[in-house]
Amino acid sequence: MGIIVQKYGGTSLAGSERIKKVASRIVTTKKQGHNVVAVVSAVGDTTDNLLKQAHEIAPAPPKRELDMLLATGEQIAISLLAIAISELGCEAISFTGAQVGIVTDTAYTKARIVSVRVQRVINEINKGKIVIVAGFQGATKNNDITTLGRGGSDMTAVALAAELNADICQIYTDVEGVYTADPRLEPKARKLEVVSYEEMLELAATGANVLQLRSVEYGRNHHVLIEVRSSFSDTPGTLIKEDVQVMEKAIISGVTCEKEEAKITIFGVPDRPGIAVKVFKALADEGVNVDMILQNVSDKGITDITFTAPRRDLPICRRVVDGVVDELKARGKSYDEEIAKVSLVGAGMKSHPGIAAHMFEILSDNGINIEMISTSSIKVSCVIREKDVVSAVQAIHRGFELDKEPIK
Amino acid sequence: MGIIVQKYGGTSLAGSERIKKVASRIVTTKKQGHNVVAVVSAVGDTTDNLLKQAHEIAPAPPKRELDMLLATGEQIAISLLAIAISELGCEAISFTGAQVGIVTDTAYTKARIVSVRVQRVINEINKGKIVIVAGFQGATKNNDITTLGRGGSDMTAVALAAELNADICQIYTDVEGVYTADPRLEPKARKLEVVSYEEMLELAATGANVLQLRSVEYGRNHHVLIEVRSSFSDTPGTLIKEDVQVMEKAIISGVTCEKEEAKITIFGVPDRPGIAVKVFKALADEGVNVDMILQNVSDKGITDITFTAPRRDLPICRRVVDGVVDELKARGKSYDEEIAKVSLVGAGMKSHPGIAAHMFEILSDNGINIEMISTSSIKVSCVIREKDVVSAVQAIHRGFELDKEPIK
Repeated sequence: MGIIVQKYGGTSLAGSERIKKVASRIVTTKKQGHNVVAVVSAVGDTTDNLLKQAHEIAPAPPKRELDMLLATGEQIAISLLAIAISELGCEAISFTGAQVGIVTDTAYTKARIVSVRVQRVINEINKGKIVIVAGFQGATKNNDITTLGRGGSDMTAVALAAELNADICQIYTDVEGVYTADPRLEPKARKLEVVSYEEMLELAATGANVLQLRSVEYGRNHHVLIEVRSSFSDTPGTLIKEDVQVMEKAIISGVTCEKEEAKITIFGVPDRPGIAVKVFKALADEGVNVDMILQNVSDKGITDITFTAPRRDLPICRRVVDGVVDELKARGKSYDEEIAKVSLVGAGMKSHPGIAAHMFEILSDNGINIEMISTSSIKVSCVIREKDVVSAVQAIHRGFELDKEPIK
Repeated sequence: MGIIVQKYGGTSLAGSERIKKVASRIVTTKKQGHNVVAVVSAVGDTTDNLLKQAHEIAPAPPKRELDMLLATGEQIAISLLAIAISELGCEAISFTGAQVGIVTDTAYTKARIVSVRVQRVINEINKGKIVIVAGFQGATKNNDITTLGRGGSDMTAVALAAELNADICQIYTDVEGVYTADPRLEPKARKLEVVSYEEMLELAATGANVLQLRSVEYGRNHHVLIEVRSSFSDTPGTLIKEDVQVMEKAIISGVTCEKEEAKITIFGVPDRPGIAVKVFKALADEGVNVDMILQNVSDKGITDITFTAPRRDLPICRRVVDGVVDELKARGKSYDEEIAKVSLVGAGMKSHPGIAAHMFEILSDNGINIEMISTSSIKVSCVIREKDVVSAVQAIHRGFELDKEPIK
């Protein structure tokens, strides 16, 4: 009998009625002849409320204690779900991250999984039990509780699926799957049947919020078949799997956008080795994830450096950049929070030249100015004004006819 | 440098401001030159809210899962308190019951401590840290989370104090100490400076809710000096310690009452061996804590059996007694929920005859009928009508002049 790992997000579990519905879905899966391991996030807005309480007491709480606090959110969810399953007459047993053997490093609030010991899970499965696991959390070798950062429950689910050699890892969420564009921005957006890990990585990295980036990476590295689907319907979702057959299907899988970034420019920097290192090493040391970097060609030994970073990290960026500008006697700096990034992702790009050019043409035809460009083998990203983002997504979606089923 | 264990109850921690006050008290103790281990209960009404959520989903949730759920209450409290202490510039580290090595049996929702492994606590104390421990909880040898039952945080505090060989175990609560009577019933009630473990055991067993019964037993067996005191003032509380000097001080330490019991009578039972066993074995198997038992002298081989038990267990008592009555063809049964028990406790009783008689006289003089009597060497308990309980407590308090300082 195979194992199915099902992950349920916080909105799927908000309130007793929804918890009962999830319980009933799990029991149905079990009765269809599968062993089920369910990974759950904190119920509703529990995590936000806990954070608020902590910040009422201290502006910058120690991270170890914050993890101790936040981990309770999932612990409440697993016990309530196990209770709901028992009420349906099936045996269920819940485990915290620490109990289930999710061993992490000591990077509190954004710990990384170093190993997964699933013996206890296997023992309980062999007794016929449904196993409920707290997502988003683990413990260090010292048994200190850690959390895995935003979206960490996806990571827990994929890591367990890999270690348990599960048939599939189903991510239940409040959308029906992965779309060619965010349906709130482009009503004609079409649900994808299947995308490759690489495409999903680019989609997740460029703003599609359905799946945590690290969990996709982990899934790819451990060959975990992932399905993103809705916890409010029975419609099949989107499969995320190896590249092979996908290649032949669609050239483009989707258009995404990201509005949470800021653009920072340092003007008039001496163009000599070591300058970029100075800026970006300092930012990395502060934990800032720099996204796009653009350095113009040098003019008389002087150049400009532009980069984008998460908007929430702007205070750190200012501090670092102000220091660098002073130190290098650069001509100036600018901070721009009104940008957005629009990206086109598709494995087919590799073998279809001209995709990027067509994208630029569509934006230009719609009067949208491109401020920065970044490409990978399966992605083109453009930084534009934030106000243009909806029309850009719609124009690209229309221009590439993403609402139509690809020719097979 | 000695160790002080301080236990803070849920009302002491209700809200950010109170948490900060407790943090400041702990830091003050630390700065006075003590190592501090703080044991905390769940904040405010967290536990009740969690229970409510569980019962919304299932009328009788599996106990293991209930403990998984309830344990989050203390985990939230320890992390918030550790955060508040850090904000005051002291290093604090929080531990769950499982992490700190409170090993229990598998009797979920009312587990008993089987061992306490304090090495991790000692390590952190040696690093100069204030250690915050989740009360009320532990883990089985299998690392399944358990809770210790009502008042279990007192138990955690006393057990840790014993194992750490602490100088004192301070129980901070919302009253100033142990009183000669419940101050809400008898305004003239006087705070006791010191009581013996034995007296405290009887006081706790007969209705004084300041300290969990099992924790007093544990304290006595492991010679832990306990102090009950208020978390809202700096007034010294009541010391609970060995009997020695206490004996000479006061004959009576206090009068208590208990209104949560019911009286059950089985009429016309054959007076032959094995009958009492039949009734009380069945009740014990159902987990009912029978308090007083009274069997009248036999009249023509027929007798009546009366006993008291917690009122909340009345449904179980009815089921058991109805069965027994049918089986033994007893004459009848009665259930009475309108009783109360009033008790007089004092180590001096041992050497002062006539205390019980004086108590009966006081009740009689005040027109209060005694329905059952039970005595130990340091306690006299009488079952009376519930409506008479306040006047009984006041009459006894007055009659024994408990408002006056004892002659030393």
